[in-house]
Amino acid sequence: MDFSLSPTAADLKERLLAFMVERVLPAEEVYRDQMAASGDAHHHPQVIEDLKVEAKERGLWNLFLPHKTQWTEGLSNLDYAPLAEVMGRSPIASEACNCAAPDTGNMEILTMFGTAEQQERWLHPLLEGEIRSAFAMTEPDVASSDATNIATRIERQGDEYVISGRKWYISGAASQHCEIFIVMGKTDPDAAPHRQQSMVLIPRDTPGVTVVRNMQVFGYTDREGHCEVLFEDARVPVANILGEENGGFAIAQARLGPGRIHHCMRTIGAAERALELMCDRVLGRVAFGKSLAEQGVIQDWIADARIELDQARLYTLYTAWLMDNVGNKAARTEIAGIKVSVPNVALRIIDHAIQAFGAAGVSQDTPLAQLYAGIRTLRLADGPDEVHKRTIAQRELRKHSA
Amino acid sequence: MDFSLSPTAADLKERLLAFMVERVLPAEEVYRDQMAASGDAHHHPQVIEDLKVEAKERGLWNLFLPHKTQWTEGLSNLDYAPLAEVMGRSPIASEACNCAAPDTGNMEILTMFGTAEQQERWLHPLLEGEIRSAFAMTEPDVASSDATNIATRIERQGDEYVISGRKWYISGAASQHCEIFIVMGKTDPDAAPHRQQSMVLIPRDTPGVTVVRNMQVFGYTDREGHCEVLFEDARVPVANILGEENGGFAIAQARLGPGRIHHCMRTIGAAERALELMCDRVLGRVAFGKSLAEQGVIQDWIADARIELDQARLYTLYTAWLMDNVGNKAARTEIAGIKVSVPNVALRIIDHAIQAFGAAGVSQDTPLAQLYAGIRTLRLADGPDEVHKRTIAQRELRKHSA
Amino acid sequence: MDFSLSPTAADLKERLLAFMVERVLPAEEVYRDQMAASGDAHHHPQVIEDLKVEAKERGLWNLFLPHKTQWTEGLSNLDYAPLAEVMGRSPIASEACNCAAPDTGNMEILTMFGTAEQQERWLHPLLEGEIRSAFAMTEPDVASSDATNIATRIERQGDEYVISGRKWYISGAASQHCEIFIVMGKTDPDAAPHRQQSMVLIPRDTPGVTVVRNMQVFGYTDREGHCEVLFEDARVPVANILGEENGGFAIAQARLGPGRIHHCMRTIGAAERALELMCDRVLGRVAFGKSLAEQGVIQDWIADARIELDQARLYTLYTAWLMDNVGNKAARTEIAGIKVSVPNVALRIIDHAIQAFGAAGVSQDTPLAQLYAGIRTLRLADGPDEVHKRTIAQRELRKHSA
Amino acid sequence: MDFSLSPTAADLKERLLAFMVERVLPAEEVYRDQMAASGDAHHHPQVIEDLKVEAKERGLWNLFLPHKTQWTEGLSNLDYAPLAEVMGRSPIASEACNCAAPDTGNMEILTMFGTAEQQERWLHPLLEGEIRSAFAMTEPDVASSDATNIATRIERQGDEYVISGRKWYISGAASQHCEIFIVMGKTDPDAAPHRQQSMVLIPRDTPGVTVVRNMQVFGYTDREGHCEVLFEDARVPVANILGEENGGFAIAQARLGPGRIHHCMRTIGAAERALELMCDRVLGRVAFGKSLAEQGVIQDWIADARIELDQARLYTLYTAWLMDNVGNKAARTEIAGIKVSVPNVALRIIDHAIQAFGAAGVSQDTPLAQLYAGIRTLRLADGPDEVHKRTIAQRELRKHSA
Repeated sequence: MDFSLSPTAADLKERLLAFMVERVLPAEEVYRDQMAASGDAHHHPQVIEDLKVEAKERGLWNLFLPHKTQWTEGLSNLDYAPLAEVMGRSPIASEACNCAAPDTGNMEILTMFGTAEQQERWLHPLLEGEIRSAFAMTEPDVASSDATNIATRIERQGDEYVISGRKWYISGAASQHCEIFIVMGKTDPDAAPHRQQSMVLIPRDTPGVTVVRNMQVFGYTDREGHCEVLFEDARVPVANILGEENGGFAIAQARLGPGRIHHCMRTIGAAERALELMCDRVLGRVAFGKSLAEQGVIQDWIADARIELDQARLYTLYTAWLMDNVGNKAARTEIAGIKVSVPNVALRIIDHAIQAFGAAGVSQDTPLAQLYAGIRTLRLADGPDEVHKRTIAQRELRKHSA
Repeated sequence: MDFSLSPTAADLKERLLAFMVERVLPAEEVYRDQMAASGDAHHHPQVIEDLKVEAKERGLWNLFLPHKTQWTEGLSNLDYAPLAEVMGRSPIASEACNCAAPDTGNMEILTMFGTAEQQERWLHPLLEGEIRSAFAMTEPDVASSDATNIATRIERQGDEYVISGRKWYISGAASQHCEIFIVMGKTDPDAAPHRQQSMVLIPRDTPGVTVVRNMQVFGYTDREGHCEVLFEDARVPVANILGEENGGFAIAQARLGPGRIHHCMRTIGAAERALELMCDRVLGRVAFGKSLAEQGVIQDWIADARIELDQARLYTLYTAWLMDNVGNKAARTEIAGIKVSVPNVALRIIDHAIQAFGAAGVSQDTPLAQLYAGIRTLRLADGPDEVHKRTIAQRELRKHSA
Repeated sequence: MDFSLSPTAADLKERLLAFMVERVLPAEEVYRDQMAASGDAHHHPQVIEDLKVEAKERGLWNLFLPHKTQWTEGLSNLDYAPLAEVMGRSPIASEACNCAAPDTGNMEILTMFGTAEQQERWLHPLLEGEIRSAFAMTEPDVASSDATNIATRIERQGDEYVISGRKWYISGAASQHCEIFIVMGKTDPDAAPHRQQSMVLIPRDTPGVTVVRNMQVFGYTDREGHCEVLFEDARVPVANILGEENGGFAIAQARLGPGRIHHCMRTIGAAERALELMCDRVLGRVAFGKSLAEQGVIQDWIADARIELDQARLYTLYTAWLMDNVGNKAARTEIAGIKVSVPNVALRIIDHAIQAFGAAGVSQDTPLAQLYAGIRTLRLADGPDEVHKRTIAQRELRKHSA
Repeated sequence: MDFSLSPTAADLKERLLAFMVERVLPAEEVYRDQMAASGDAHHHPQVIEDLKVEAKERGLWNLFLPHKTQWTEGLSNLDYAPLAEVMGRSPIASEACNCAAPDTGNMEILTMFGTAEQQERWLHPLLEGEIRSAFAMTEPDVASSDATNIATRIERQGDEYVISGRKWYISGAASQHCEIFIVMGKTDPDAAPHRQQSMVLIPRDTPGVTVVRNMQVFGYTDREGHCEVLFEDARVPVANILGEENGGFAIAQARLGPGRIHHCMRTIGAAERALELMCDRVLGRVAFGKSLAEQGVIQDWIADARIELDQARLYTLYTAWLMDNVGNKAARTEIAGIKVSVPNVALRIIDHAIQAFGAAGVSQDTPLAQLYAGIRTLRLADGPDEVHKRTIAQRELRKHSA
């Protein structure tokens, strides 16, 4: 069990840190100004494109991709994890390096399951950062954590699939650059539960596809959106199936593991930044005759934060190591475990930081409340905590029930 | 220790419940539609005015006022508490009944400390619901929980006070009807800590008063606003002092107690509504072959919610009873205690409700995320939890240190 | 909802407090010395008998009994509750006043369901404090929180019942004065679940009754014991049935409510004493240059303790009031609620007190660890927390499922 | 950062696991029987000596020692950690392998700081398992977490040191084999705080040394005792100083790090066993018509246990790795961190296991309550959680205060 970075990854990390300090962190204010000036919550600001050009030039591009392809050597989960943490420190870094969800997972499954033609048409421009994509699985009307509940219909009619259904919280669907949806739905409702679903590629401008509205997260409107999308008899050629028909469940599973590492490490990076903000704040603020940093309760928060973050990071690295060395399936307990642990750790820390900041903590003057809102959704997205804990418990109990 | 309602209050509660069912709850959707149609986050929708007319007709008006005046008999804190809980169930009920903060506290101190002229000019229209008001105490640059930190200057020059300083999170300041600010600041910086501050009445249109911007709360923009307000050599006649010069600290203290009861009971009402929403949701949602209501973990949340809410309500009623019977000063431990306990109880319940709702819980389709954000600020406003807990501890320790 | 004490109860409370200060608290050390000198964990020390004589003389005797009888007027649950809290402050006070479990519950059901002959033989000497009793329900081999699991057989053979089964954690069974067991078991295994069980009175010296061993609680051996008791074809006359045959479940239910109030209020009294010990300790202990009482984290514990205790007390008084005014059945949610809330509150406080005391906290030099152990069992006895929370949740959900 | 075991350690672990299964676990019942038969809480049962012979023969002896000596090659902290976890699964394994506290720490400082003569007389027989030892630091009258408070006097008079003071919770002092005390006390009360203390070796039979009494832990009497020891003008030759005069503080620091790894890994082993017991229990117990293992709340406990244990283990291994690779001083945050985290994790798990077992959980029929009591002391011993958290916070804040 060796968590050391490979020389390649160590080198990338050093260069990524330099990029953060030299370009990304200074760009955050530019980003805020350009967004404010546009008056459009879904505006795509120029600074992002500038950062993308620079990241590409610096070779800090598509770092997430685990597989060797024509575009990259591929980094193991363990090698990519610390890079994801670094990018997690800024809300604009992942996109700058073409490492932002949901594109990352989408690019991965296109690499693994896409036909040469699909890859040419969609994967290549995604890898170039020319277009963006969305992944449409969750539905408003069913408990989507139980994937067998997914009700959208994908019906084959001759050479076409006809798609009907309602999806929501489809991240990225409001992006001006989003051109392709990967949609999960039922092709064979009468098959065994895990063989009912398929995934199809649906260009965004397909007739019958309507982005109904944007869903908020707390009061925030995400730039790329979390949209409600309606499919009404939308038609695509049968060649747009991803992988095999009725194989959607397996693709969804394959998509999960690495994404969890990415989310968790980015979340750890965000929580580290919240902790730094809190430390700076309490050192500089005086109440009742002493610095907040001297208050025992606040020191308690800081100590808990340090302990919990270090534990959560080690747990995530361990999970990444397991995925690299024994496979995603054998790491199922840990993949579920980090999904539960990391967002909860981060939320506790951010909540304490908010408390230390007082009113500024819930305002637009610090990133804390927006971080809280975004990470709060991770406890729901892709199955609520409770579903993942049940999985873990059942696997633990199985050791004893033989 | 008798928590029974007086006959007057029992009658009011019955009539208020009828008003809620018949008018207020059905008006919530109208409210949302009128706000959406206006495209202005600070719009004052007609439905509020309609409800106000109706509330006045039904005699459900200014219920909060504890003191007998020409306008009302006055209700004790204990009698008003259950009415506040009922109004807390809807975000528009308090305003409909002219029982919304910060006007309530402002009307109370104008009743207690205002001159006849001040009452005529400001209190009367407030009690009529014709204008609204703001209370400007918190400052961005100092830990305002320690009131001696307040730095805004109120300097007497001849027959005028000249006010300079920056305030923020001034609730109500963005309301189209807000006409008067009650501002706390230093008149005598060299006096003993609790004799440095005064309160003055500053009409909103006074030259030198600028509402700089609205502060958000977790992405939300409050209709009436939480504003940053700049006072630059704003001048008011000396007659605009509230109470005596250098007596601001005492007025602030007097304002606190009843406001805490109001906030806590409204919060309990809101949490009860969140619990109801959660129960309805889990009864109607199926995952992995059974209703969410049958899941043990969710039942655990519901049981904790019922226990904690009932405890919190009794604690608040007890505090109200103490205030009525032994006075605010003797109830200081309990006034601090409910300030800490109630919002934390409510946040746990709302967070569980969000979790039970999945993505809908953080969205605009349920009131939960906005409730969470609003109640989260109660852990900061008017002193963070930690300050109030220290007060309680010191009073407890004092019993033993003799 | 009036929690005021009746004049009778107020007078009793005053006299009980005097008895505590004058006699009971000073007797604690005598008690410890007499127990240590005896070298027998089940010794019955003389000081207890002395206190009993004094309590009787002072009219502080059998205070718990809610029903008017030839021996007492009876106190309502609400009137008795504060007296139970006072007695809970000392581990020897309840027995001194003949208000100790399990006798209290046993006396109550003998009053309600006993025949004149049973009352003459068992209830009278119990009320006089001449003998003690045990209540044998829990069994080691089944989850006894589900009373339908109780497997002990009570079989009628002619004029006798023959009892066979194994019970454990039978409190009081090791007492030298214990003369009677009230035993729950199945008389009709084929009946509907709640009509299978009966209760019979079994004198301790009945052949076939063996007190197998004493069960420990953590490392403690209770003076009166928590015993494992074996019934092997023990025979009693049919006249020893308590109430009607197959009516055991209903008697068990009737026994529950008041006992919960007693346990909870005694627990609150014990937690108040732990809080006092903690305050005294931290005021007198210095580390790293300041008193522990000045440490923010310790102040946080003290504040939480005050808030949680006051809430728990009000909740218990409310439950007592409900039982007195609307009946035990209508108060079922609250009876379950205090059963869950109060011991958990007390354990948190005692654990903090242990932490504040350091090594002394877990030792025999403070009462804290033994208090912790005893109250820890309350989360298990008479159904674990989880069973009671499920009851509460189901009742809450029922409001919405119509 | 490589947590892999060296080939030597991997081989030892395999052989240790075999020893556990073949000898240690079966010996637990023998141990209990021999202790019960002796009627003496401080009896030294033969089975321990038998296991020691076997462990020596198998080469599973003194595994803890990090330094290469004439007796062993030495294992790194990282290599020893998993062995400590394995031994932690049984309360008798550490002693069987001569790896029990406080001997381990004592042997380590004798190796590092002892003179050849001291090593010959005390270290050698300790390493052979012929004698045992105690470490006397904590005092009842001062907050010993602040080592500068230690008040025992060690006064040089001619060729002797004269020791006067009172210590308590001196582990091992009641052991029949304990022959030597390492005692910390003040040789130079006027020096700088960290240069006041020395350590001296005091044979147990020295005149003036009295083992006053045994201290309990939650009612339990440890076999080897946690004693109060009185030193009244006890005299030892000056040659009995350990290391240099006034160097006691530094020795105490050196003793700390590895001991923390040992304690934490043993605690993790104990918690793993508690989790196994809980899983077995809930799979075999039925209430309200289904297995406890199917209850959602219990599954939640199991999942939390798995997540928290895996995190705590990784954190401890990481700390061991840091100590091996960058030194104890650089690992100070982490050494404090595991001291706080691991016992709290274990206590939560054991408490849940107790709850799942019902009455059996607090009884002598499962090891759970005794485990709880023992691990509860770890939150106090060697400084309470709160002191270690303050250390962590101050180090975190220091990063930002430059």
